[in-house]
Amino acid sequence: MTKKAIAEFIGTLWLVLGGCGSAVLAANFTSEPFIGIGLVGVSLAFGLTVLTIAYALGRISGAHLNPAVTIGLWAGGRVETGTVFPYVIAQILGGVAGAGILYMIATGNGSAIGDFAANGFGEHSPGKYDMASAFICEFVMTFIFIIVIMGATEKDRAREAFAGLAIGLCLTLIHLISIPVTNTSVNPARSISQAVFVQGWALEQVWLFIAAPILGAAVGGIVYKMLLRKTDFSADDRNE
Amino acid sequence: MTKKAIAEFIGTLWLVLGGCGSAVLAANFTSEPFIGIGLVGVSLAFGLTVLTIAYALGRISGAHLNPAVTIGLWAGGRVETGTVFPYVIAQILGGVAGAGILYMIATGNGSAIGDFAANGFGEHSPGKYDMASAFICEFVMTFIFIIVIMGATEKDRAREAFAGLAIGLCLTLIHLISIPVTNTSVNPARSISQAVFVQGWALEQVWLFIAAPILGAAVGGIVYKMLLRKTDFSADDRNE
Amino acid sequence: MTKKAIAEFIGTLWLVLGGCGSAVLAANFTSEPFIGIGLVGVSLAFGLTVLTIAYALGRISGAHLNPAVTIGLWAGGRVETGTVFPYVIAQILGGVAGAGILYMIATGNGSAIGDFAANGFGEHSPGKYDMASAFICEFVMTFIFIIVIMGATEKDRAREAFAGLAIGLCLTLIHLISIPVTNTSVNPARSISQAVFVQGWALEQVWLFIAAPILGAAVGGIVYKMLLRKTDFSADDRNE
Amino acid sequence: MTKKAIAEFIGTLWLVLGGCGSAVLAANFTSEPFIGIGLVGVSLAFGLTVLTIAYALGRISGAHLNPAVTIGLWAGGRVETGTVFPYVIAQILGGVAGAGILYMIATGNGSAIGDFAANGFGEHSPGKYDMASAFICEFVMTFIFIIVIMGATEKDRAREAFAGLAIGLCLTLIHLISIPVTNTSVNPARSISQAVFVQGWALEQVWLFIAAPILGAAVGGIVYKMLLRKTDFSADDRNE
Repeated sequence: MTKKAIAEFIGTLWLVLGGCGSAVLAANFTSEPFIGIGLVGVSLAFGLTVLTIAYALGRISGAHLNPAVTIGLWAGGRVETGTVFPYVIAQILGGVAGAGILYMIATGNGSAIGDFAANGFGEHSPGKYDMASAFICEFVMTFIFIIVIMGATEKDRAREAFAGLAIGLCLTLIHLISIPVTNTSVNPARSISQAVFVQGWALEQVWLFIAAPILGAAVGGIVYKMLLRKTDFSADDRNE
Repeated sequence: MTKKAIAEFIGTLWLVLGGCGSAVLAANFTSEPFIGIGLVGVSLAFGLTVLTIAYALGRISGAHLNPAVTIGLWAGGRVETGTVFPYVIAQILGGVAGAGILYMIATGNGSAIGDFAANGFGEHSPGKYDMASAFICEFVMTFIFIIVIMGATEKDRAREAFAGLAIGLCLTLIHLISIPVTNTSVNPARSISQAVFVQGWALEQVWLFIAAPILGAAVGGIVYKMLLRKTDFSADDRNE
Repeated sequence: MTKKAIAEFIGTLWLVLGGCGSAVLAANFTSEPFIGIGLVGVSLAFGLTVLTIAYALGRISGAHLNPAVTIGLWAGGRVETGTVFPYVIAQILGGVAGAGILYMIATGNGSAIGDFAANGFGEHSPGKYDMASAFICEFVMTFIFIIVIMGATEKDRAREAFAGLAIGLCLTLIHLISIPVTNTSVNPARSISQAVFVQGWALEQVWLFIAAPILGAAVGGIVYKMLLRKTDFSADDRNE
Repeated sequence: MTKKAIAEFIGTLWLVLGGCGSAVLAANFTSEPFIGIGLVGVSLAFGLTVLTIAYALGRISGAHLNPAVTIGLWAGGRVETGTVFPYVIAQILGGVAGAGILYMIATGNGSAIGDFAANGFGEHSPGKYDMASAFICEFVMTFIFIIVIMGATEKDRAREAFAGLAIGLCLTLIHLISIPVTNTSVNPARSISQAVFVQGWALEQVWLFIAAPILGAAVGGIVYKMLLRKTDFSADDRNE
């Protein structure tokens, strides 16, 4: 387990440093003549953190980097019960470590961190979406995310190696859709890591970004297992 | 068929929620200091919905997610006649379901949906292109789309696994070219899903976004079958 | 040869319709509230035309879509002499056909085509770069382009299938660098296709966009053959 | 060694010409009606230089293109001691050659090169980040970069071929995060190549962009070797 926990720790550190870091440092960096990376750049950055860790450390820990993913895969029968707790702890610690490094870098020009890259709803939603909107959005995004993860990692000689690409770019896609709604979480470790630095409203609202992604992922894992699971490999292999 | 229909339903739901959702929620979200995803972001989002579903559920249903694709593949001899009707129904229902979820999220900050992400021509073309322009554009884009789909999915040991990447990014490319002309359809299920919410002009113009993509895809399927089909696998295998 | 010529014709049609089309229709389409695709979008579009055709039709014709590529590969010993002329003719005709379709679509809102997506230098360089700058730029870009093409298509069990990805994204990269200098050609068929519609200055300057890419590609092909060619496959295979 | 040195020379030339070139020529090229490539485009360009060379010349030299990478891989036990010096020399010479070509192109419209794409901190950081921020940022980015490189290139039948993709996009990700902090180096050859043209402050500050990336890479290489190295291949193979 140690090596797996280290991989999850480093991977989630990178997810937060890279994804939230791009948002905090570069998204709105449009002081002339620079054109900041905007929401497209942040979306790419989140996805690429997963893509890079999937190909680098995926064979060690599976590169979940996200408590909702670990729990969704457990609900879908892909992860053993004993794996859940140590993975989730490593992910939360890694996320907070990533946020800490980001804090050190971001304050190096005298800026305050403001809202960092915290997730929020209502007043704190970038586009002022209410709590119901935020909950539905986080639930559905994580629901599909788990279905993509479970489908893309099915044993399949040629396509399985594309899982890191498909899953990373799925996270990019999720951000392209939903940053204006909640600043996009789908990942409790990412939300917690920002909330502990922002405090106040971010801690008060963080429950939604724990509950909605975990529920969405769990339901997604069960739906996949019940309705979409690959049941007959031999048939496929014969057709190829 | 049930499992295939579920896969097409979920996949088309994701195409509409992700593609149209990115357009409605994030494309023009440029309230300071945010820089919206613009047409590049929307183009990426549409392509990534197909890419992600192709790797997740492609082995189940082929991940058509589009009545024009199903009909084009039927015209090209790749899909059996009995498959067409259930696929098209699942795609239309999935698209409307995706639009319904998007409606719930998008109205959560008190906004009206306006023109949603409906397709249009003339007055309702983003760049005021007339009906002939719109028809040619939708026809040609879907024509090439089917040729890319049929070519990329030819049995070919190493390259076939890249089909999801090539086809998804082809949809991205099509959007990079043609959003200003028609808001880009090439997919009747996507157009119908928006028109039923927008009503009025969108329903009056939706015929073009059913007819032009289906015609383009059918002609593309036939052209591929007649002129470009891989006829001799053994030769290729011998050369490799 | 017929099937190969058809593939080169359709492929180059798509390169011009997709690449130049994205530039003409969508690059500067920033009428509120739309944010046009800009130079990033155009760069992506050009690259994706090659990527999509490479996976769709590459096994038929090799997906050159570019007289400089065909000639560079001939100089590098990869293409037979008898292939060059029919490929180049098919590419030029395909390019002009793609420009014709684009003309029909683009004028459908009453716009004049202006400079279309023609290549130019001096007065007609987007950034007013002089002829020497333009020549060096086109020469070096095509020189590297051919080295990437030859290297990425070396027989190599696992990596060869990535050639379409690497080569397509190389064309994207080339555009990210050099649109301000010459509007980026590296492809005589693409330049000719625009010049015949723009006439005047574009035809007067088109010689540079024939000469520099062909020279760069030929020198690149020879350099690769002399200095970088894979000479010993068995050693590699043994190490794997 | 000659062929390997040529590959590193050409590859690093391309990294500087493509990456720094996109920054100098196209990042801020927003004279109406053009929308420059901005920080997203520059980030993509740097990553794609590595991706393209990895698939084209990776089988020859490994496509390091970066003294910090060579030294990090040496610290991680992947590169022999005798390889380090010739690689580093070829990389520095290639980088300076790329900068020279860029100089010729960029001055072709009468512009001065200004700060070129030099790396800096304090006054010369794009976002005015201080020396500590800059050092931490360069150190951590290169630390993760080496872990991704070492992990992605582990012998693994299907996934190893994705290394060029994962490593190239990791460099894109690093730029998406850190351009505002230091203009992003993680590569002493890239920094030196710009400093020799800019002179003055750029040469005075270049030490940080030599020291921090090399330290980060060396520590990353050692951490990977100690904690994350794949130790048991047979187990994996049995599970697949």
